[in-house]
Amino acid sequence: MRIAIDAMGGDRAPAEIVEGAVAAARDFRVAVSLVGDKDTLSKYLQGIEGGVPDSVTVHHASQVVDMGEAPALAMRKKRDSSVVVATRLHAEGHADAVLSAGNTGAASAAAILALRPIAGVDRPGIATVFPTQKSPLVLMDAGANVDCRPRHLSEFAIMGAAYARAIHGVIPGEKSGVAAGQVPSVGLLSIGEEEGKGNELVKTTYKLLHEGAGSGFYSYFGNVEGRDIAFGTVDVVVCDGFVGNVVLKTAEGFAKMFTSSLKEAFLGDLRSKIGAMLLKPALQKFRSKIDYAEYGGAVLLGVNGVCIICHGSSDRRSIYSAIRIAKQTVESDVTGMIRGAIAQVRAANEASDAALGTGDSSGSGTDSTPSSGA
Amino acid sequence: MRIAIDAMGGDRAPAEIVEGAVAAARDFRVAVSLVGDKDTLSKYLQGIEGGVPDSVTVHHASQVVDMGEAPALAMRKKRDSSVVVATRLHAEGHADAVLSAGNTGAASAAAILALRPIAGVDRPGIATVFPTQKSPLVLMDAGANVDCRPRHLSEFAIMGAAYARAIHGVIPGEKSGVAAGQVPSVGLLSIGEEEGKGNELVKTTYKLLHEGAGSGFYSYFGNVEGRDIAFGTVDVVVCDGFVGNVVLKTAEGFAKMFTSSLKEAFLGDLRSKIGAMLLKPALQKFRSKIDYAEYGGAVLLGVNGVCIICHGSSDRRSIYSAIRIAKQTVESDVTGMIRGAIAQVRAANEASDAALGTGDSSGSGTDSTPSSGA
Repeated sequence: MRIAIDAMGGDRAPAEIVEGAVAAARDFRVAVSLVGDKDTLSKYLQGIEGGVPDSVTVHHASQVVDMGEAPALAMRKKRDSSVVVATRLHAEGHADAVLSAGNTGAASAAAILALRPIAGVDRPGIATVFPTQKSPLVLMDAGANVDCRPRHLSEFAIMGAAYARAIHGVIPGEKSGVAAGQVPSVGLLSIGEEEGKGNELVKTTYKLLHEGAGSGFYSYFGNVEGRDIAFGTVDVVVCDGFVGNVVLKTAEGFAKMFTSSLKEAFLGDLRSKIGAMLLKPALQKFRSKIDYAEYGGAVLLGVNGVCIICHGSSDRRSIYSAIRIAKQTVESDVTGMIRGAIAQVRAANEASDAALGTGDSSGSGTDSTPSSGA
Repeated sequence: MRIAIDAMGGDRAPAEIVEGAVAAARDFRVAVSLVGDKDTLSKYLQGIEGGVPDSVTVHHASQVVDMGEAPALAMRKKRDSSVVVATRLHAEGHADAVLSAGNTGAASAAAILALRPIAGVDRPGIATVFPTQKSPLVLMDAGANVDCRPRHLSEFAIMGAAYARAIHGVIPGEKSGVAAGQVPSVGLLSIGEEEGKGNELVKTTYKLLHEGAGSGFYSYFGNVEGRDIAFGTVDVVVCDGFVGNVVLKTAEGFAKMFTSSLKEAFLGDLRSKIGAMLLKPALQKFRSKIDYAEYGGAVLLGVNGVCIICHGSSDRRSIYSAIRIAKQTVESDVTGMIRGAIAQVRAANEASDAALGTGDSSGSGTDSTPSSGA
């Protein structure tokens, strides 16, 4: 298996990207194509202690998309950028997945352009994994589609459920809640548990998800609230990309606040310092759980391929961990599962439409451009 | 000053409500009217250790609105419910504020019906206070209005800014960021800092908030992201009630997860237990900060009065703390400040409309019923 990596994307590129990729290539037995300026990358590779495995190669790209750049414009003007070239390597079959810690909008746009949406998917979306009190939870969409219609959320439910099956063990020390043969549970993010609570989008989506559960790809829990994310009430939470992105970043912010307040408390006086020293081993598990938001990768679901999107601030540890997720996503054939599920649901809908003599009144057909990159 | 309290509302009513109210009456020198079933409440009061101050009285109400009850229906059918009677006491001038830990939708509806919206306010909304790395932050709307228009968010900015001035010292051990004479900063919750990032509502609101800052009631920071809430980047964050409620409950869920994971780590083995014991004093401050979400009260801003809405799970400590917030909100005349600010902004808008020869094209005028209670 080979992973194409946008080695120039992210706040700490290329140094941390290269370090993380080389470590992952060693430990996970994956081949890695580092995409970016050949001279720069070769220089970084030469500096790596313990040498670089043969499975790590460099693929030249002359341009870089900046973090603040408008994705649509970047796609037109920077066809030889590291993110576009890395995605193309995957699309042309030279790699099994692509990974970027650069501009999220650009990485999504490149994937949608080069890999194309899966037939029947209107809106590819970003799925992200949260640590919870129980097992990891998939939230979708985490920011690819800021204004959604009910049918988009219904696609997210099917795609998120497929991904939930694939993330077994992605959080160190934790098992996934969805074992082989189990059906993932899906919750609709709202502001009250009862049907009828929520905004217009949620109210209309409620019924659609209920019907969608008839496909057998997920069981429908109904509405969930914000606190159910940390509690791990369900395996998958669906929401529009605006709400999902706000939730992701809110949780990230509070995780940072908690750990920094804790650190402060630990360094207060001698007594506290000794206490903290004694607690160190016990706190390791706690920390690795809380830290997850920072070192996990998100995945763009709904395209013909595997596209992993990392946080802009990713360090070597994040990249290392994200490559592991990329490998698991390829191996568990999430893309194939989504393709099959979407085709089956589509066929069932068409059959029922034909039986009722009605057509698809929701209009537009395929509309695959994310309305904004977060 | 007298506070009318819905003594029958909340998961732990009336016992915890009565206990918290009596303690607050003792410590804060406020008079308290406990509203609910006279016999039940008298029995609880008799059981209180150390006796009950004369400033605590009981006001009979024969009905109770249940937590799951539809607010609109409850307003029609339960005119003698504790929440309606308590609100009426305030509206008729027998109390300076009203407080409920019961059904949020019912408490909001009762306040809007009995107190009426302030002239010029289309949508009263719920403001809630978050602990941050810096000073406490006001988020509005936390759930009263699930589907909002830009002008509603622009009202939230003015109202939230007025409240930010009033909450000095509400989080134990913390100063508020907005001292007398300072202008609160307002951020618009979105998924990217740049203007143009966000959903349709946010994009249109951006300009409106910028113009609104001309009033001098707040300074406009621009877009903020979810993580800026915990970081305390601004004094006030505005968003629609759906997003605000999801954010509030997400933060609440993660706070619970963090503290329970921490507790688990502390009770691991003997070594950890000793460490935890040594750290206990240092962790007190950390805990009181994290716990805040549970014991703080939210306030419904934009009505002619002070209406404090507490979490359904409120215990005596939460009620005690919420009564302190009620007192501060009355003393700092938040309602008067909002009334003045809204009138001034309205007059300025009318003057500029007259000068331009245009009318208000946003339509509808006053529409004060919250679209759903969270």
